[in-house]
Amino acid sequence: MGKVVALAGQVGGAKLAEGLARLRGQDLTVIVNTGDDYEQLGLAFSPDLDTMLYTLSGNAGPGWEPAGESFTVFEMLKSLGGPDRPRVGDKSLAIPILRSDGLRNERSLSQITLDLCRHLGIRARVLPMSDDPVRTQVVTADGSLPFLDYFMQLGCEPPVHRFEYPGAQDARIPDAVVDALHATDLEAVVICPSNPYHSIRPILEVKGMRELLRKRGAPVIAVTPIIGSRALRGSAAKMMRELGREVSARGVAIEYFHLIDGFVIDREDESLAESIRSVGIEVATARAVMRTQSDRTELAGAVLEFADRLRAAKLRAAEEA
Amino acid sequence: MGKVVALAGQVGGAKLAEGLARLRGQDLTVIVNTGDDYEQLGLAFSPDLDTMLYTLSGNAGPGWEPAGESFTVFEMLKSLGGPDRPRVGDKSLAIPILRSDGLRNERSLSQITLDLCRHLGIRARVLPMSDDPVRTQVVTADGSLPFLDYFMQLGCEPPVHRFEYPGAQDARIPDAVVDALHATDLEAVVICPSNPYHSIRPILEVKGMRELLRKRGAPVIAVTPIIGSRALRGSAAKMMRELGREVSARGVAIEYFHLIDGFVIDREDESLAESIRSVGIEVATARAVMRTQSDRTELAGAVLEFADRLRAAKLRAAEEA
Repeated sequence: MGKVVALAGQVGGAKLAEGLARLRGQDLTVIVNTGDDYEQLGLAFSPDLDTMLYTLSGNAGPGWEPAGESFTVFEMLKSLGGPDRPRVGDKSLAIPILRSDGLRNERSLSQITLDLCRHLGIRARVLPMSDDPVRTQVVTADGSLPFLDYFMQLGCEPPVHRFEYPGAQDARIPDAVVDALHATDLEAVVICPSNPYHSIRPILEVKGMRELLRKRGAPVIAVTPIIGSRALRGSAAKMMRELGREVSARGVAIEYFHLIDGFVIDREDESLAESIRSVGIEVATARAVMRTQSDRTELAGAVLEFADRLRAAKLRAAEEA
Repeated sequence: MGKVVALAGQVGGAKLAEGLARLRGQDLTVIVNTGDDYEQLGLAFSPDLDTMLYTLSGNAGPGWEPAGESFTVFEMLKSLGGPDRPRVGDKSLAIPILRSDGLRNERSLSQITLDLCRHLGIRARVLPMSDDPVRTQVVTADGSLPFLDYFMQLGCEPPVHRFEYPGAQDARIPDAVVDALHATDLEAVVICPSNPYHSIRPILEVKGMRELLRKRGAPVIAVTPIIGSRALRGSAAKMMRELGREVSARGVAIEYFHLIDGFVIDREDESLAESIRSVGIEVATARAVMRTQSDRTELAGAVLEFADRLRAAKLRAAEEA
């Protein structure tokens, strides 16, 4: 068994990453979206990194927060004239406090995140897509605003015209991410079922990332966040519609055209398999809904098995040639 | 009725300040010790300022913390490799978070503290002794360390050789403190029953403070933190012993020699009154223990009445001359 690299953001991404972590432990590296990072009250919030850390350490609640969250500090802050949103729980404050302190002490976001993994007993390596700032902006009829504001203040309502990723082309890929993608025994790159536009694209936009993902020739496999014509979580389906894409697993596969070797769809969407294959993307079907712990592990297992098959096929093709 | 300025630190100081605030509201300015301020994880802690704010806003518990404190963030921080002391409660984190953010945004400690008063509904003006850093150091046989470490890590055990106040002579008195002490209708300056060495002395050591306190000629009155030969709270008696002072209310009065016009002792110590008067300090007796709310208000009333008498006597003396 070789190494696995996953790309992820938000809750859906964290769930599949957890399945992969159960199967691969320290052989898994997760590259996490930091396009939604923000600073408030001098604290460095990285929502997707934190959700990943809570999930992989078994501390996650049903959403993006740790389980059993309370809001004592937030209520006190509010009563003292502090911001009234986003509503951040007490447990959720600890990592941003440590992170901002680390950053002020000239430690990199990567180092800080690896330290947190160690303290949380996470064997996988969780890493930010860059130590430099990249911000996902949503462009609507009223202008451009950070995704988090679009989500928190506008409830994702105004139609999306397009996304922008300022900073991405100047951002450097962390050394630890380069090392993971350079591994000679790299077995698979997995794009988790996260929102293609504000979770995965920001990662892909970091300068050199697309090339690096394909460098070792390990199969790149994406898992659909859409089943039928609905998003498993969040607003992916709505955004696809507004961007003029086909709202289906096939629509997502097309978003990753030229990047992925294989695409995992839900069994319900088996009828789409042929047309996805016709554009040169291999397809596997699996149960893509992750409700339970074992759903996560099973889907992760199906993805890795698919990668095995693709690798074997590639080897056979090379031998035959 | 004119204006009142109080000097205070720690819980004992906050209690009398609260009594004064009930009687004088917005006509009270409290100058608070910041010699025990510290930074941890990039957050700016000002223990005495915060205890004062919690007390004056009715949020204080029995000690220096807000009532009903929980420790969710602290426990989470600890599990993530953060510091394991001092143990800071969830509510107690809110002000340091706002303060450090304000300081990083170039606001002064005074401005930040006045803003907090406003949000907490405190009519009195609570101000730091300086916006610049002053640190109270305890010198023991093993060297010099910050008071807070002496308290937290050593439990105040090693005998005190002396105190040092680095920064005090370079620290500037905030404009708002200068204004309060310049008030033409200044009626009294009250030194609260706080520890003379690490609560009041740091304030007095700020360059120009002693002169400013006496500038308007309003009576300066101190209230004893010692009854019989014991400290009402904390370690004042122990420190006086180690510093070779007489452990009594008289010993405290002597610490403030040349600064105060009057000294308030507990009724239990009435026998000391004559000998304190003999060095030129007027004496009033009152119940100096503050267990209940009304104890605080009564002691504050006794102090202000004492100030009235001293002012009237001074006027008479001036007329007679």
